[in-house]
Amino acid sequence: MKDLTLTVQGMSCGHCVSSVEGALNQLDGISEVNVNLGEGKVDVKYDEAKVSVEQIKEAIDEQGYDVVA
Amino acid sequence: MKDLTLTVQGMSCGHCVSSVEGALNQLDGISEVNVNLGEGKVDVKYDEAKVSVEQIKEAIDEQGYDVVA
Repeated sequence: MKDLTLTVQGMSCGHCVSSVEGALNQLDGISEVNVNLGEGKVDVKYDEAKVSVEQIKEAIDEQGYDVVA
Repeated sequence: MKDLTLTVQGMSCGHCVSSVEGALNQLDGISEVNVNLGEGKVDVKYDEAKVSVEQIKEAIDEQGYDVVA
């Protein structure tokens, strides 16, 4: 398992948190997701054999948010 | 049909707009809903024989937003 923290712009409320968490939890290989709305941070614990950082970023992007770092 | 414009605090994104619009459209007697996210305004066209202003405000409140005027 690896840890990843992404900086994500555009998340503004609980619905946004739910949509990001929901999208990431649907990916295979994700074991934990934590979104810090105030800081605009998304923490993910993932299995690098099953899912790539690129796929994680893409899932967030598809929900309409910008992964900036 | 009557027109009503409410000032609503806490709506921050498209999900919020959808949840307010969805809740109001489920009420009987509502014929039109428009949410202006930037101004925090909710415009409703409603049949006062079927639904009260109180019920409209309550539906918004139940979605987690404050009707302030």
